[in-house]
Amino acid sequence: MNSPRLNATLELIRDLSDDNLARQVEEHWASLTKPRHSLGKLESLLLHFALIQGVPIPRLERKAMFVFCADHGVTQEGVSAFPSEVTAQMVANFLTGGAAINVLCRQFGIEPVIVDMGVRGEALPGVVNLKIAEGTCNFAKGPAMSREQAIEAIETGIELAGEAARQYDVAGIGEMGIGNTTSAAAIFSACSGLDPEETAGPGTGLDPAGLAHKRMVIRAALQLHRSATDPISVLAALGGFEIGAMAGFLLGAAAMRLPVVVDGFIASSAALIAKSLAPAALDAAIFSHCSGEPGHAAMLNFLGVSPYLDLGLRLGEGTGAALCINLLESSVRLYREMATFDSAAVSRESR
Amino acid sequence: MNSPRLNATLELIRDLSDDNLARQVEEHWASLTKPRHSLGKLESLLLHFALIQGVPIPRLERKAMFVFCADHGVTQEGVSAFPSEVTAQMVANFLTGGAAINVLCRQFGIEPVIVDMGVRGEALPGVVNLKIAEGTCNFAKGPAMSREQAIEAIETGIELAGEAARQYDVAGIGEMGIGNTTSAAAIFSACSGLDPEETAGPGTGLDPAGLAHKRMVIRAALQLHRSATDPISVLAALGGFEIGAMAGFLLGAAAMRLPVVVDGFIASSAALIAKSLAPAALDAAIFSHCSGEPGHAAMLNFLGVSPYLDLGLRLGEGTGAALCINLLESSVRLYREMATFDSAAVSRESR
Repeated sequence: MNSPRLNATLELIRDLSDDNLARQVEEHWASLTKPRHSLGKLESLLLHFALIQGVPIPRLERKAMFVFCADHGVTQEGVSAFPSEVTAQMVANFLTGGAAINVLCRQFGIEPVIVDMGVRGEALPGVVNLKIAEGTCNFAKGPAMSREQAIEAIETGIELAGEAARQYDVAGIGEMGIGNTTSAAAIFSACSGLDPEETAGPGTGLDPAGLAHKRMVIRAALQLHRSATDPISVLAALGGFEIGAMAGFLLGAAAMRLPVVVDGFIASSAALIAKSLAPAALDAAIFSHCSGEPGHAAMLNFLGVSPYLDLGLRLGEGTGAALCINLLESSVRLYREMATFDSAAVSRESR
Repeated sequence: MNSPRLNATLELIRDLSDDNLARQVEEHWASLTKPRHSLGKLESLLLHFALIQGVPIPRLERKAMFVFCADHGVTQEGVSAFPSEVTAQMVANFLTGGAAINVLCRQFGIEPVIVDMGVRGEALPGVVNLKIAEGTCNFAKGPAMSREQAIEAIETGIELAGEAARQYDVAGIGEMGIGNTTSAAAIFSACSGLDPEETAGPGTGLDPAGLAHKRMVIRAALQLHRSATDPISVLAALGGFEIGAMAGFLLGAAAMRLPVVVDGFIASSAALIAKSLAPAALDAAIFSHCSGEPGHAAMLNFLGVSPYLDLGLRLGEGTGAALCINLLESSVRLYREMATFDSAAVSRESR
């Protein structure tokens, strides 16, 4: 059913648990001048990162943030507080360094990579132009994209992850696409069986009437596309090109053991697709934060993952992932730079 | 009852709310290229910071972390997993840059200031030597310190905050002192009426039997010192010199409008003392994180404050405060550096 290339990637994905390596990491943490386990989640974050890289002393120097951008036909249904031309306007903002993600990338030394997966209009100079089409079709009327386009989006993500694995020690994934909380909520409902009441929220700022309408649009679309059950079909029916690319990026990263830091609600919906294609795909994924978008907590719970931050962010672009990459950098520096009990001549626990 | 100098500081402390300034900050956030309020707690953190500095565009360049160190006589009761000589050993570790707080200060460009408020032995070269005595007395047998020493500790903190307000845009407060979770839990019980069952936890790593013993020691001390009710008396009976200094630092910072980022369980116990002396003292305090020490959530709740991070840290030294100063820096950079809807030609919400 899948393409040969996708299947080849899925076959490379392995469970990354390694008891021996985990013990080495635990022993190193225990040698450092602090009470045992007193760095809490920073210690488990470092352990996860080391397991992905497969080494006892992981490296974190080269950091990238991939921001996947695309337009959504479902905006025709009036499901967003912002007009759809904002997608292209924000891509321009990314390229001139004025968006939130640019500020955080500058602060943390992360290289932003802006990927145009299907923004309406000409691709702007400076983006990685991998446009599949100028926006998806309106999934309230028919499939958002063809099955071929869905596979192409995933394969594009796999390709990018392969390149990223050669260039970076960690990659964040975030997105921009007016209308994409609608797509993400629809994918979550399709995967979980939950009603849009539980999965869809105000996105960029719908009022209660707008939110009720958005949920109605999603409910009708789920009915229209009820025969879509396998992950590729769900993506084709309800997805976005940026969501497909992020799903592929997660798969490629898992295959290449590249640690990926996942942003918020929309990036996590890509993880739903990736996990359905390969359960171990999320072994290489670090979930950064719980978003202010109401369905995100339920989505993370459905994925069986725990985020590190809970700051009420609901901006996307990779902003939560950038904050978490910096937290990861703290954990790596602590692990690599702290003195040991022996080197600093500090006495250990007496009981 | 208090000293003239302490009273003069308390008289300078004002409620820092300012509706007009809050409106200016809100308007600036609303002008930036992102959905309204989509930066969640980063927006409220920036607002708080601006209100403390009293300006619409706050500045955050010069950052310090004050680590207050002292020994505790109550360690004679066997209340800590670590021997008490570790306090001085860790001070030495701070001075050679090997502790967790050093690593985070290097990462975030924060200047560490190591203050010896009462570590046993000679003060080490490189510390700010403000030793009141070589450790407190054992509060299981009598008061931890005299009333004069309690006031001296608070006034020392006020003095340091005054100097810090001239040199820095923000200061974190953290601590080192074997035995000081016992002191902090006792202060919390004395202020709140809660039994040590609710306030005392394993600290650096007591086993269940050790924790039961620690709670018994605190319960007996609360009975012994039951006549201590005003905040200075509670500090004298149960405190530590570093806790008194942090209480003073909070008061001085509130008087001088210096934003203070408060670390974990022990630093928050100093906030209990400061708030009892001047309810508005905490207007200048940013509570960084909820610690893994079990009583901290209840203490923050009792103080009526909300932390920004919840990472299970229980290391002290200012580690949680350092992470939060970096988060604050993100919020300031976003607020100051993001493009506006007008400057980036991005369309606004249509509804």
